[in-house]
Amino acid sequence: MKTRVASAVKEVVISTDGPTVLIGERINPTGKKKLAAALLAGDLDMVRREAVVQVQAGADILDVNVGLAELDEVALLPQAVQAVMEAVDVPLCLDSHNPKALAAALQVYRGKPIINSVNGQEESLREVLPLVKEYGAAVIGLTMDDAGIPKDAARRVAIAHKIVERAEALGIPREDVIIDCLALTVATDSQAALVTLEAVRRVKEELGVNQTLGASNISFGLPDRDILNSAFLALAIAAGVTCPTVDAAKVRPAILATDLLLGRDEYAMRYIRAYRQRQQ
Amino acid sequence: MKTRVASAVKEVVISTDGPTVLIGERINPTGKKKLAAALLAGDLDMVRREAVVQVQAGADILDVNVGLAELDEVALLPQAVQAVMEAVDVPLCLDSHNPKALAAALQVYRGKPIINSVNGQEESLREVLPLVKEYGAAVIGLTMDDAGIPKDAARRVAIAHKIVERAEALGIPREDVIIDCLALTVATDSQAALVTLEAVRRVKEELGVNQTLGASNISFGLPDRDILNSAFLALAIAAGVTCPTVDAAKVRPAILATDLLLGRDEYAMRYIRAYRQRQQ
Repeated sequence: MKTRVASAVKEVVISTDGPTVLIGERINPTGKKKLAAALLAGDLDMVRREAVVQVQAGADILDVNVGLAELDEVALLPQAVQAVMEAVDVPLCLDSHNPKALAAALQVYRGKPIINSVNGQEESLREVLPLVKEYGAAVIGLTMDDAGIPKDAARRVAIAHKIVERAEALGIPREDVIIDCLALTVATDSQAALVTLEAVRRVKEELGVNQTLGASNISFGLPDRDILNSAFLALAIAAGVTCPTVDAAKVRPAILATDLLLGRDEYAMRYIRAYRQRQQ
Repeated sequence: MKTRVASAVKEVVISTDGPTVLIGERINPTGKKKLAAALLAGDLDMVRREAVVQVQAGADILDVNVGLAELDEVALLPQAVQAVMEAVDVPLCLDSHNPKALAAALQVYRGKPIINSVNGQEESLREVLPLVKEYGAAVIGLTMDDAGIPKDAARRVAIAHKIVERAEALGIPREDVIIDCLALTVATDSQAALVTLEAVRRVKEELGVNQTLGASNISFGLPDRDILNSAFLALAIAAGVTCPTVDAAKVRPAILATDLLLGRDEYAMRYIRAYRQRQQ
């Protein structure tokens, strides 16, 4: 299955046959004091710089999130999207819990973006899916609902089914729904990664759609996070994740290694090219 | 299934329920000029030092190999085994193609070693399995035979069956056979890792035995080998490898991360302890 997204000038195809597409996660003020301070001061230079760094590090798509309690996302998200579009030419993922901020960002975006995100709650389905339809966007569907994030794989898979069905009922093609089975830290629950991987495998089998994961959540609260994130990405990609949301600068080598091991990089050409670029 | 091996003073249990046991691979002169030169000069100091380094880095078992065309393995392997036993107290893996060298090493070894290796060739089965039986050892069974290493998973699995059956016919319990589905580089064959992983999964399903892999072969001829080896180990351990043969100093963090992700490290205690040790 192929999900096509685009900037004004560039199309990226996310395919369940690989290779893995990287959604850069760094434009997000949560837990980033400097970026939060810059956004509060109305300064978008750091957003532009981070966009360039992530694309140079190999991000194929960039997630843009300005969600902070103190910020007016409806005003700021379109500005941030505009700033990123001026800095780089990759497709974007418009990331907000606020449907009004998503609508405002959709109005300035040029191309076919990903809306991040809808989830299984009635309110979310009712408010976000019509935007996806109206703008012909793709959308990330989080496998959570009013009861929160299910502890077990079966209920996450059930929510994925529900999101896909509701999207299709509105005329949104299944290939424009990207499911996120949600990674939670293994620091407090030793079964957390296994549950997510099981959900990913079943969504691949039962729905066949493209899948993302905010992979770095897996290591929250633990040391040497890049080692855990890299191992988790190898397992998640093998299970069915096709466009993880990651810090490209940190985990792209591990992702390219995984693609090579999974037979998606003939003659290791992408792996070797990326290695050479890192040496320059 | 549990494979118990031992030095004179220490038992190591390799279990199909994990956690992963590391067989240190560094005492092997192939491709290591300094170690080869030392062995040719009859100097075993480097062997002792490497043994200490690998055990400090977290190797649970050490592989001891002195195979070089110019060396008399029958004389040298027992000497090297003796030197390693004096330096560290972990169980050893006695590694030679030469059954006479294995027999000589078995005579000096104290405890229950792993014999590395038998394979599907009639001559190997006939010469090595009786040694395994006589000394009550465990044995690594390589999934190759007179026709070399099969290109496909099915024939590797068939050889694994044959080795286990022949061992059991001699009264060697199945749990003392550790299968190696053999990793070959992905540099020249983009399907190489997939074939190995498929064989590992099927050996786990059909035979349920412990499994090793010389994991670093996967990256032969490629740059940034540790990144590839680490990603491959995550996939291989998830597939069923329980005691990979590795450079402990390089890939133990990735292996501990994988165990944690697979629910084999409650409260991340082993992962965090190893992190703290690396910081000291």
